[in-house]
Amino acid sequence: MTLALAHETLYRVPFCDTDAIGIVYYANYLKYFEIGRAELFRAIGHPFPAYIARGQYLIVVDAYAKYHRPARYDEVLAVRAGFDKVGRATLRIVYEVARKEDGERLAEGFTSHAVVDDAGRPSRLPEDLVATIRARRGG
Amino acid sequence: MTLALAHETLYRVPFCDTDAIGIVYYANYLKYFEIGRAELFRAIGHPFPAYIARGQYLIVVDAYAKYHRPARYDEVLAVRAGFDKVGRATLRIVYEVARKEDGERLAEGFTSHAVVDDAGRPSRLPEDLVATIRARRGG
Amino acid sequence: MTLALAHETLYRVPFCDTDAIGIVYYANYLKYFEIGRAELFRAIGHPFPAYIARGQYLIVVDAYAKYHRPARYDEVLAVRAGFDKVGRATLRIVYEVARKEDGERLAEGFTSHAVVDDAGRPSRLPEDLVATIRARRGG
Amino acid sequence: MTLALAHETLYRVPFCDTDAIGIVYYANYLKYFEIGRAELFRAIGHPFPAYIARGQYLIVVDAYAKYHRPARYDEVLAVRAGFDKVGRATLRIVYEVARKEDGERLAEGFTSHAVVDDAGRPSRLPEDLVATIRARRGG
Repeated sequence: MTLALAHETLYRVPFCDTDAIGIVYYANYLKYFEIGRAELFRAIGHPFPAYIARGQYLIVVDAYAKYHRPARYDEVLAVRAGFDKVGRATLRIVYEVARKEDGERLAEGFTSHAVVDDAGRPSRLPEDLVATIRARRGG
Repeated sequence: MTLALAHETLYRVPFCDTDAIGIVYYANYLKYFEIGRAELFRAIGHPFPAYIARGQYLIVVDAYAKYHRPARYDEVLAVRAGFDKVGRATLRIVYEVARKEDGERLAEGFTSHAVVDDAGRPSRLPEDLVATIRARRGG
Repeated sequence: MTLALAHETLYRVPFCDTDAIGIVYYANYLKYFEIGRAELFRAIGHPFPAYIARGQYLIVVDAYAKYHRPARYDEVLAVRAGFDKVGRATLRIVYEVARKEDGERLAEGFTSHAVVDDAGRPSRLPEDLVATIRARRGG
Repeated sequence: MTLALAHETLYRVPFCDTDAIGIVYYANYLKYFEIGRAELFRAIGHPFPAYIARGQYLIVVDAYAKYHRPARYDEVLAVRAGFDKVGRATLRIVYEVARKEDGERLAEGFTSHAVVDDAGRPSRLPEDLVATIRARRGG
């Protein structure tokens, strides 16, 4: 898993993200992935609200997270997101969550996405989005 | 605060509802109130989805919770909800959350509601809803 | 992915689990997996609180979810969890989330786990747990 | 309700905070209050982790939120928190959540707190905390 084109977002862990074992609850990393993904798209000039306004939705096809070390209350996390595979109709984004203070990697993962319209019908990825991602990768 | 017309729903506390102090996070009681509210409306024959299908939404005007004792992981909670005040355009629902095992009262609270349409305009409460609530109260 | 030894738990989708697109937010399926997992362990006589009381924790090593169709507000979900691979120190659990009304499969996934003690040190899986799982599988 | 001594924290609404009606779910404002509260204490030199390290916890006695207008996906919220009443053993904090872009007030509320030790026993508020708050208020 590489993060060739990565955008970093900082996030401080509130109490509500932790659980009774004293660590961040495992499902919340998918929330952190969402925050990283949203900021990644914003950073390349394709904010999600612009898609929604056009009736296009980037749905989640699957999601994976691997947990290396626990995050804890009040720690500042660095959430890094980058584009991995970009096809005609699907997109894969990879993530890394690290503790900001010492750079320790806490989790990594990916999400796969497809674009659907208001009626839930799949459509091709917007051409300008694909072009932007490919230009950034220099590929 | 009375719970004259109460409906009880059981709910087992998952890890995700707890926080690093080892107890249920305080905002989650408002989620429990929602679960109790939904079951209360279902029990009197007015399930929320029927309202939504007609473009009517029971919005929350305000919410209050008082925390007596903490709920913990895996405990079964009894969420009781009942109608308190019913006006022409507003409604107040009261709640009590107790530990099922020993009946210990853990929290109580209320939410006030108004009805709005799809465009967000306030409207009067549905007459059949008001009639149903009043009939149940014997008032 | 098979669910040879499956335990089913019912769960009604509250508003708080849905998002602005009108469907259940993708991270919440990991919460449903937790609920299914907890009930699976309870069903075989190994409730999580008993482990916690002994200072043993079933930590999550990784998690995967594949989303087939969206779940929506107020739908009743059938969460099925079953044991997949059981090693000396690790365990894999598989899940399926279906709409109760028509049996439509909405999502599936897995989580891998290891056991650690209070100090975070990995330990072997409890022998009685492994024996119980193997006996159930007839293996 | 005044916010005489207010600290402002910015927060962008992720999908996971919204619900199927398209607005921020009402319980999440208590999460925003927590974020504002944590930053308020940090701003005056009394970060929560320092209390926790000493075995002191600022528990929530009650919480209230009044909802004026809905917050929506991707909006940046300004969460303002300030000290209201400070007694010997209890503390009240008031909050305001506004849309950053146009300053529109979306919600307000309060939380009351007491300090307990590791065993759950109530104790007086730390004297240096009370002194700091009083000094800031010029009272």
